[in-house]
Amino acid sequence: MSEKVRATYVIETALPLEKAAAVIANEQSSGTFVAVARETDELKARFAAEVSGVEQLPPSGLPPLPGASGDWSQVRRGRVTIDFPLDNFGPSLPNMMAAVAGNLFEIREVGALKLVDLDLPSAFAERYPGPQFGVQGTRDLMGRPDGPMLGTIIKPSIGLTPEQLGQLVSELADAGIDFIKDDELQGNAPGAPLAERVRVVTDVLNRYADLHGRKPMYAFNITDDLSRLEENHDLVAQAGGTCVMVCITSVGIAGVEFLRRHSQLPIHGHRTGFGAWSRSPQVGIAFRAFQKLVRLSGADHLHTNGIQNKFYETDDDVLASIADVRTPLLGGYETVPVLSSGQSAGLAHATYAAVGTDDLLVLAGGGIHGHPNGSAAGVHAMRDAWEAAIAGEPLDQRAARSPDLAVALQKFGRR
Amino acid sequence: MSEKVRATYVIETALPLEKAAAVIANEQSSGTFVAVARETDELKARFAAEVSGVEQLPPSGLPPLPGASGDWSQVRRGRVTIDFPLDNFGPSLPNMMAAVAGNLFEIREVGALKLVDLDLPSAFAERYPGPQFGVQGTRDLMGRPDGPMLGTIIKPSIGLTPEQLGQLVSELADAGIDFIKDDELQGNAPGAPLAERVRVVTDVLNRYADLHGRKPMYAFNITDDLSRLEENHDLVAQAGGTCVMVCITSVGIAGVEFLRRHSQLPIHGHRTGFGAWSRSPQVGIAFRAFQKLVRLSGADHLHTNGIQNKFYETDDDVLASIADVRTPLLGGYETVPVLSSGQSAGLAHATYAAVGTDDLLVLAGGGIHGHPNGSAAGVHAMRDAWEAAIAGEPLDQRAARSPDLAVALQKFGRR
Repeated sequence: MSEKVRATYVIETALPLEKAAAVIANEQSSGTFVAVARETDELKARFAAEVSGVEQLPPSGLPPLPGASGDWSQVRRGRVTIDFPLDNFGPSLPNMMAAVAGNLFEIREVGALKLVDLDLPSAFAERYPGPQFGVQGTRDLMGRPDGPMLGTIIKPSIGLTPEQLGQLVSELADAGIDFIKDDELQGNAPGAPLAERVRVVTDVLNRYADLHGRKPMYAFNITDDLSRLEENHDLVAQAGGTCVMVCITSVGIAGVEFLRRHSQLPIHGHRTGFGAWSRSPQVGIAFRAFQKLVRLSGADHLHTNGIQNKFYETDDDVLASIADVRTPLLGGYETVPVLSSGQSAGLAHATYAAVGTDDLLVLAGGGIHGHPNGSAAGVHAMRDAWEAAIAGEPLDQRAARSPDLAVALQKFGRR
Repeated sequence: MSEKVRATYVIETALPLEKAAAVIANEQSSGTFVAVARETDELKARFAAEVSGVEQLPPSGLPPLPGASGDWSQVRRGRVTIDFPLDNFGPSLPNMMAAVAGNLFEIREVGALKLVDLDLPSAFAERYPGPQFGVQGTRDLMGRPDGPMLGTIIKPSIGLTPEQLGQLVSELADAGIDFIKDDELQGNAPGAPLAERVRVVTDVLNRYADLHGRKPMYAFNITDDLSRLEENHDLVAQAGGTCVMVCITSVGIAGVEFLRRHSQLPIHGHRTGFGAWSRSPQVGIAFRAFQKLVRLSGADHLHTNGIQNKFYETDDDVLASIADVRTPLLGGYETVPVLSSGQSAGLAHATYAAVGTDDLLVLAGGGIHGHPNGSAAGVHAMRDAWEAAIAGEPLDQRAARSPDLAVALQKFGRR
């Protein structure tokens, strides 16, 4: 039997679910809105997408998206799976996307349609090598063989002079940070050009590594026009930098894959802008499907948010995202989940209890730089909290002998 | 005064509109969730995004997106404009997107947020050359100096053998078609590889051009991994092809711009998948903003849908999209609107009356290939209808002396 791509959608429709699913399958494979010559039964047998599963769900109670047809008092909601012959597009992510995430969002037969999962055949693994570094490669590069990889984001996100940046990086390295990243808003702006940031930061970190035998990883945001990505990457690699970051929706998932072909460094994948696809329960692409595309494309790190984050996702959402990223894909594609947004020391115990691993990159921006005693104290507080969580030592007990942690809990709270 | 990017959003929030807008402006420029050291007043004065306009709108009546905070009985809806200093990211589309369309979709302070427009300073025009061909270049290449550019999509969308494809293209050329395109589902699949399609189609069209002095334009769908785009483009160009097509959301807007730097041919931009961004009134990116990004990136043609289309958009939506694409951007960036989806001869008069121009690429797929007397008759019907519309001849009057048009109206109806 020929190979298939199985796409899972949650839809809402005034049609019987089977019928709506059949419309989608037809629209996204050999059909159009009228029968045409040459669309033979033989052609359909080979190329038609097939509905392989329909599971009824309770209606959402939400009004339909604009343009939905039919009598909405008869609404049906369900999870439907559609199998697309791989031969329709071959193992090409961009071409597959035109089928599984193309015009179907616009059809009138549905009042809601979200792509929630994708099951891909092994042909994709043959074409896409995926992450080069994953957990172990990242640990090796940053010199953190075990325990959580603790990191921070440069704050303020933009506006620091190169000198201030160098000073801050030096302070963070001295405080024992594993990982630092540019904010996603910091690109290649006139006031802080990438080349200048690379020069200043790698200077500090190379000197630190010479003295201490360990180089904290710095993810330079090299997001830019695609024609500049290779040059930006090379700038980092040649200066001794150990990580490049891209905003996935800015360069496109295809842009991540393009960078992966050239990259000699871990790729830190920031999900900024993903909310445009994910936040509506009625349309778009859910994280489970998105993260598979990103991992196939070769991102070594992927943002999942963290618990108690400042964004819309619930802790359950976040924990499901972390679990998704940690689930092997086609037997591999190991990407490090990046917990970020509103993170601070007081969340370590709850996070570790829920996630059950320390193969994580945990980032606190404000939760480190907003520490009343400064960024270095913020790093100490994070490290102490995570050490306690892993050792099974209660948070308060540890705080009693860690003044930096005690202050952090007072400032940022706990879960 | 320094240059700004002005982004316009429609938001819904339980906060006063000014306050919600300020949260967005802060989150997307120098701020984070707590005050941090080094975020000086001087830094904020230079880098902070500013709320430049707040216009109250009636509430949508929709329940908020997940995770919205506050008392929703106090909902406010409004159009807010935020000015971002260009210096925060420089004239780079991918970096700008991380600011104007980044984390803001995920913040709890809004229960709906859609990016509806972008006003860009001229620095972007200096960096991005935009469409190479536009209306006139497209007309010149296809040999259609005036009147609408009439085209079709290969149907069935996938599954034809190269021989069937060649035969169909020959028939369409003989019938006087201006433009033919691959379906967006037809990429570089094992059963119909791009190289084979290019060979067969350009053979037919080169021979046709030798005989008739006019070469219909064929848009080959070269969508693929970005590392293959240049090679795919060259395959088309070297064989004498005159257009390449990409699925914009599959390659990313940045992927279109990447192709533009290399391309010697018009770029046909298909919007498949855009519905994931556009269909919800509560989240995503509206067409007005999207089309500016696509035009800056260099697409010569951009799909707008047509009136009475099979998708969710109303005729008003479609007409606004066509008008948007025809509105000069930074003094230029001429892109041809592509009217597609459920189009047929019976819509010519209504379309022309509403749009008032024939600088359009009007595509009928099923509306040509589903013609009871075959695809060539379908082309004749479209041409006759549009000629009549432009000449001011009523549809029925023309149908009385055009049997192909009469049959088309009977089959597909009219508006």
